[in-house]
Amino acid sequence: MKSLDDLFMHFLQDVYYAERQLVKALPKMAKNAEASTLKAAFTAHHDETVHQVERLDQVFQHLGKPAKAIPCEAIKGLIEEAEEVISESSAGPVRDAGLIACGQAVEHYEIARYTSLIAWATAAGHKDVISLLRQTLDEETRTEKSLGDLASKEINKAAAKMAKAA
Amino acid sequence: MKSLDDLFMHFLQDVYYAERQLVKALPKMAKNAEASTLKAAFTAHHDETVHQVERLDQVFQHLGKPAKAIPCEAIKGLIEEAEEVISESSAGPVRDAGLIACGQAVEHYEIARYTSLIAWATAAGHKDVISLLRQTLDEETRTEKSLGDLASKEINKAAAKMAKAA
Repeated sequence: MKSLDDLFMHFLQDVYYAERQLVKALPKMAKNAEASTLKAAFTAHHDETVHQVERLDQVFQHLGKPAKAIPCEAIKGLIEEAEEVISESSAGPVRDAGLIACGQAVEHYEIARYTSLIAWATAAGHKDVISLLRQTLDEETRTEKSLGDLASKEINKAAAKMAKAA
Repeated sequence: MKSLDDLFMHFLQDVYYAERQLVKALPKMAKNAEASTLKAAFTAHHDETVHQVERLDQVFQHLGKPAKAIPCEAIKGLIEEAEEVISESSAGPVRDAGLIACGQAVEHYEIARYTSLIAWATAAGHKDVISLLRQTLDEETRTEKSLGDLASKEINKAAAKMAKAA
């Protein structure tokens, strides 16, 4: 990594890996969520993520580079964590609350990644890719917020009742 | 994980692990940063992180549980990534820009974690721990923002010049 472009390409390949892993992970999260609102949120974000992968394909194209993914240990860890929540809980609001936390952590990871990519594209003058990256950043930010709202308005209250019942 | 308290304890032990790993990782990030402003930011956040560990000790105490850390693959991955940036770059603004991105990703991870813990503490009525968790959340949020500001105002411009010179 000798230039800002090298750094940009490294993190672009990293987030490309992450988005493709999430295309596979989100249907499992939707399947294991009990609340219909949460199932719908994960399913909607899965569909959005498919488009985010396509948008990254376009970024690679703009830069004249082949689309390539490099394994990213952080996203692997975040997805493992969601699998752990599923395996260590039964279907219901406590699992749903855990899945929301895992989903928010994934969104925050992506927010960090796209924030850096946009900052570097700005500094390097890659104007043509900034709007593509910004569209995705806006979607990740909205998803993180809507998962948080779902938790505070619905899921966490139901999960807290489970605690009292136990 | 049968109750919200089980979930809270699992994620508390996870972030306890993360903060303790960061106490070790941040001095390495400071040492490998070239810009004095970035060195200072990582060093200041190291000192803050030591206090954040102490605050988590207090949260465990409030809940009458022994402080315990459980390994967290996500933070391991995020720290590995910073080590990768260091090993694949030379000292200078490009490495600094990469280290900032890694630092921001770590902060976003912690923001996600504390956000969930605060939401669950609120739903479960653990009022005594909310203010402790919120103090740390505010620090993580400030750190993420100040790293981003450092990138856009100083480091990324210097890194972009390296790209042109290469």
